[in-house]
Amino acid sequence: MSMVAACSSLAVPPDQPRTLATSQAAASKLTMDQVLSASKPDDWRTPDPENTIYLELPGGLVVLELAPQFAPRHTANIRSLVREHYFDGLPIVRMHDNYVVQWGDTEGKKPVGTAARTLAPEFTRELTGLAFHSLPDPDTYAPETGFVDGFPAARDRASGQAWPVHCYAMLGAGRDVAADSGGGTELYVVTGHAPRHLDRNVSLAGRVILGMELLSALPRGHGPLGFYESPEQHTIIERVRMMADVPATERIALELLRTDTATFDALVEARRNRSDDWFKVPAGRIEVCNVPLPVRVR
Amino acid sequence: MSMVAACSSLAVPPDQPRTLATSQAAASKLTMDQVLSASKPDDWRTPDPENTIYLELPGGLVVLELAPQFAPRHTANIRSLVREHYFDGLPIVRMHDNYVVQWGDTEGKKPVGTAARTLAPEFTRELTGLAFHSLPDPDTYAPETGFVDGFPAARDRASGQAWPVHCYAMLGAGRDVAADSGGGTELYVVTGHAPRHLDRNVSLAGRVILGMELLSALPRGHGPLGFYESPEQHTIIERVRMMADVPATERIALELLRTDTATFDALVEARRNRSDDWFKVPAGRIEVCNVPLPVRVR
Repeated sequence: MSMVAACSSLAVPPDQPRTLATSQAAASKLTMDQVLSASKPDDWRTPDPENTIYLELPGGLVVLELAPQFAPRHTANIRSLVREHYFDGLPIVRMHDNYVVQWGDTEGKKPVGTAARTLAPEFTRELTGLAFHSLPDPDTYAPETGFVDGFPAARDRASGQAWPVHCYAMLGAGRDVAADSGGGTELYVVTGHAPRHLDRNVSLAGRVILGMELLSALPRGHGPLGFYESPEQHTIIERVRMMADVPATERIALELLRTDTATFDALVEARRNRSDDWFKVPAGRIEVCNVPLPVRVR
Repeated sequence: MSMVAACSSLAVPPDQPRTLATSQAAASKLTMDQVLSASKPDDWRTPDPENTIYLELPGGLVVLELAPQFAPRHTANIRSLVREHYFDGLPIVRMHDNYVVQWGDTEGKKPVGTAARTLAPEFTRELTGLAFHSLPDPDTYAPETGFVDGFPAARDRASGQAWPVHCYAMLGAGRDVAADSGGGTELYVVTGHAPRHLDRNVSLAGRVILGMELLSALPRGHGPLGFYESPEQHTIIERVRMMADVPATERIALELLRTDTATFDALVEARRNRSDDWFKVPAGRIEVCNVPLPVRVR
């Protein structure tokens, strides 16, 4: 079975609002690979080392990018927790099939040093001041979806609010019942079909940009909510560092495709309407969590 | 982090079409667990042993239910392939992270016996004659979504067509470029965020109803399209049988919640509007691939 990504020059349905793919690039007949091959250096960005986390598992390295645009308090606190070595040696305690993987201190007693244990929630933020790049197609859960600086997001012009959305690989700060009971000491990553009912109920703080399979292929937990039933089943986090604290020789030169460019618009269009021979019926639409967010090594 | 499923009695938004959750059960304030606890024997069905596949992996048993409602030719052919022992000893050749797992004969040479190697496609079917139970909320990809006999599906009243949709755990018949190049000799199961762009492009033939994690937690393949790069990485399928051919003493007494009942409507409503203390903002909506399809052992 071949599932190659290709795009078409099919016109935009006139009944759809349209802020993407209006460029010449988008209207040309290119596959996603061709769009990426034709990209220019300016289409890519390097993640800020102060917002980039290197999480080392026995199986290898997971890299995450923080989203201070949406969760300034949580991302600052996670940065502090990393620098306090809070996460070093902590277990992955939960792997709920088709849902989330989660790590943290099950006892809730490990010292947080200069970091905070809990924070006021950051479920949504003001739309003002945010560079929101819209997708053209309808979404089940939100009035509008799109991307902000590489993060999948939603907005509601009526309320003037925006929020990141729970796509695959998104990073969130687990919490208890109280809205202000999270803070970053317990983190989870989405490993299944987007659990969008969590949107606006948890502070999302970033996303995995490399090594996702080191989390998604972990054995599933069989306790309630997918928690592991015994400590022997835990995977232990060996070390977590901010990229800024990683020696230059150890850093991976990752680049992420910017989501506010004509090249990205063309990529979205290539995925909305695939016209390579394999596809018999182009979807003509795309849902926010199905949009690829390319990462490459420079 | 607690993520308990609960529902509310929030009224249906007046701007939403509504065919579900109009019953008293749906309007009452129950959690999903309470809905299931209050269910009656008639709310459950037993899968037809002639449409139920026992697939044995080294890690355990995967059970799949076929969907002859949507793919009568493919399901009949898969049944024949099972009875010809076609799948016994075949490898899982592909595990594409956040996408699909796939098995089949990489050489394409294994005899199919009385079964066919390829079939005319069954991407969509006539809506007429199908008991389509609608969901109330908008979908990115289809004019309408819902369930048919326990399978997530879409329909388009304008064209008079219906089709199953690519949710997590759905089973499809891989094919090459030609629409009629599939037939069931190569099968895949969705293991990631619903790849809805495949809808109407592949013949979906059923879904996994037990043992999904035996597929979803497999190591990822690192070749193009997630194929494994060497045969040593393959997981070998030990044996595949139709449940009808499995001795009674070996059968698992699975029951599936029917999707055309007031109880199912109440479950959907419990997931659309969760009002337990953990949820601060009920989604008020649900997307077809986020609706749970409960399975229990009698």
